[in-house]
Amino acid sequence: MPHGPVDLLLQLFAIFVSAKVVGEVFERFHVPSVLGEILAGAVLGPFALGWIRPSDTIHSLAEVGVIFVLFSAGLETRPRDLIRVGGKAVQVAVAGIVVPFILGFGYMKLRGDNSSEAVFVGAAMVATSVGITARVLGDLRVLSSQAAKIIMGAAVFDDILGMLLLAVVAGLAAGGGLEWLHLSVLTAEAVGFALFMIFVAPKIVRRIEPRVARFSTQSSSLIVALSICLFLSWLAAKIGMAAIIGAFFAGMMFADHAEEWNLLPRVGGITEFLAPFFFFAIGTQLDVKLFGNGVLAAAIIVSVLAIISKVIGCGLPMWRDGWPTAFKVGIGMLPRGEVALIVALVGLQSGIVLQSTYAIVVFMTAVTTLIAPPVLRYLFRNEASQGNDHPSHARAQL
Amino acid sequence: MPHGPVDLLLQLFAIFVSAKVVGEVFERFHVPSVLGEILAGAVLGPFALGWIRPSDTIHSLAEVGVIFVLFSAGLETRPRDLIRVGGKAVQVAVAGIVVPFILGFGYMKLRGDNSSEAVFVGAAMVATSVGITARVLGDLRVLSSQAAKIIMGAAVFDDILGMLLLAVVAGLAAGGGLEWLHLSVLTAEAVGFALFMIFVAPKIVRRIEPRVARFSTQSSSLIVALSICLFLSWLAAKIGMAAIIGAFFAGMMFADHAEEWNLLPRVGGITEFLAPFFFFAIGTQLDVKLFGNGVLAAAIIVSVLAIISKVIGCGLPMWRDGWPTAFKVGIGMLPRGEVALIVALVGLQSGIVLQSTYAIVVFMTAVTTLIAPPVLRYLFRNEASQGNDHPSHARAQL
Repeated sequence: MPHGPVDLLLQLFAIFVSAKVVGEVFERFHVPSVLGEILAGAVLGPFALGWIRPSDTIHSLAEVGVIFVLFSAGLETRPRDLIRVGGKAVQVAVAGIVVPFILGFGYMKLRGDNSSEAVFVGAAMVATSVGITARVLGDLRVLSSQAAKIIMGAAVFDDILGMLLLAVVAGLAAGGGLEWLHLSVLTAEAVGFALFMIFVAPKIVRRIEPRVARFSTQSSSLIVALSICLFLSWLAAKIGMAAIIGAFFAGMMFADHAEEWNLLPRVGGITEFLAPFFFFAIGTQLDVKLFGNGVLAAAIIVSVLAIISKVIGCGLPMWRDGWPTAFKVGIGMLPRGEVALIVALVGLQSGIVLQSTYAIVVFMTAVTTLIAPPVLRYLFRNEASQGNDHPSHARAQL
Repeated sequence: MPHGPVDLLLQLFAIFVSAKVVGEVFERFHVPSVLGEILAGAVLGPFALGWIRPSDTIHSLAEVGVIFVLFSAGLETRPRDLIRVGGKAVQVAVAGIVVPFILGFGYMKLRGDNSSEAVFVGAAMVATSVGITARVLGDLRVLSSQAAKIIMGAAVFDDILGMLLLAVVAGLAAGGGLEWLHLSVLTAEAVGFALFMIFVAPKIVRRIEPRVARFSTQSSSLIVALSICLFLSWLAAKIGMAAIIGAFFAGMMFADHAEEWNLLPRVGGITEFLAPFFFFAIGTQLDVKLFGNGVLAAAIIVSVLAIISKVIGCGLPMWRDGWPTAFKVGIGMLPRGEVALIVALVGLQSGIVLQSTYAIVVFMTAVTTLIAPPVLRYLFRNEASQGNDHPSHARAQL
């Protein structure tokens, strides 16, 4: 292949290096590197300097990248921990959906927008981007802390509920009103999938383990884990949930054997390579030029509401654990990331949401995504300094 | 991303799993798994069952995959080893180009084809697919043996010379005759690049090592190595060589520090994930329906000549090391793989090579690519059983 892939290679190199360099600069100032990777995309992307216009291949790599971010996060979330925090996590997820939706919907109605616009903004305020939070918590090495487990658990339930809400919104967008049958099927599938993955799947892994060890192929454990990750990502997307939910559950399925199977450094290598393409691609979607006068004010108010509502909504069920933990969980649930952008895109493409409303959602997404990491970093400073609770981390770090 | 990537995920899953499953079956019968991965592509691809038609994204992933196959191979090739085998490797490479080209060109002329067809067949017989050989030797864990180092070294020089030949052929195809200036520049660039990477680059790595350790970002060593791998792949492609040559040299640059920097399992994870897409994609390009009566006979004769000429050409410079080593080197240089297919495609697309000539080259490529791995496996059976000469391997394998 002498001449063909030159452009692809140049994009791969430019995106990987710019994301990592800006990430490294951020890291020096104690801001999570993931923010730097997003900023690199925003600055170099088509809406600003326009030096890098990610090709379709880059977008595909980004899709695969976020799957591995969640797969890696899942590998560090043992099912029994999720079960232990399950009750709390569900409460956090539900409150973290109800409060933001009501505030977002209410404000937009007060502002004089029509109901469909208000529903979209409300729905976008609901979503939690488990990808960004997982990356930040992983960078801080506090994924094994109690608060992080509740955040990850709640974010997973939140994503499941968010997908249901997206189905509702997409139903509205399609103009056909709500298809209750479709929604019921999706709900049943999502709940069934989650329950199966939490309670049954880890037992299957325990069963097949001795067989995997007998395979002739090198690194059979990695191959089995990757196959199941790809399968569950596809399955989750197929039944109308997000692919990343499947990837997270796939990781969780192998969490108990991650160390023994030596999965962490090897999957970590894949994530390290592919994740920057996802965060860079998120950055390239932020367009600062969309903001007029009134739009900016509304965007700021919606952003403030988005922050307050998530922190209160998600923090409230946690108040018995003390305010520090409640605050950590609330902030951990802040970033809207790609999920909110998808909700907004659905609305925009169907034509029932205005450009300005889209801009508001994008702004709110950017603000919540940018604010959460440094605050999380501050709140987790004690656990993070003890850090290195996982042997694989000490090994993976130079 | 709720609905978009379903098709991509399905292809990723189907290709990864089918390649790995057939590979595992082959491995059970002591045939290298890489052959199974190619066969999976040939059988499921568009020319046979037609169940999987790789999308553009898959082809891009395949391009990135072969880069990591060579990067991984480079990581296990220490520069000082390549320097030690340098003289021998250059002799093997040159003889391995001259003999096949003369035999291929001669036979086609004897057969009555015109000179341009003969040049293309000769050029296709010259190429050594270092990707497939690297994978087979890596699977056998004999990359550190003397014969393997000569093979890898010669294959690298062979690829450099092959790229020059491809430039000649492409010049012929463009109809402009040979552009001697362009060719001289390419030669100087290729030689300069190779010398720089072998003699200077490893010293740079030794210099920057203490600085890399001070980076704030997690796994900075991996990020630096990946960045340089992408950069050199792009650079090599940019100056008219193959991207994979750049990737191999990038790996070699870090070979002395691969263990210390813990690069092997992490880069190995990426390779494990991406490589099957490359080998599967190679398989999807094999079309058995191109063969008429006379074509099949010619294809068989060309294949036999391709085998004999490479084994003799590459084995001769090695005869002082004893016939077993000479034979290993000759067989190791056999697979033509993607390089020959590219040469043939260039000719076919420019219209100066007939469909039947293209079919002959494809057949020869398939035969040499299919024959080498099992024979190599047989020849290296003693070293392979001692195996596990590298601690990372023992760790990486379950």
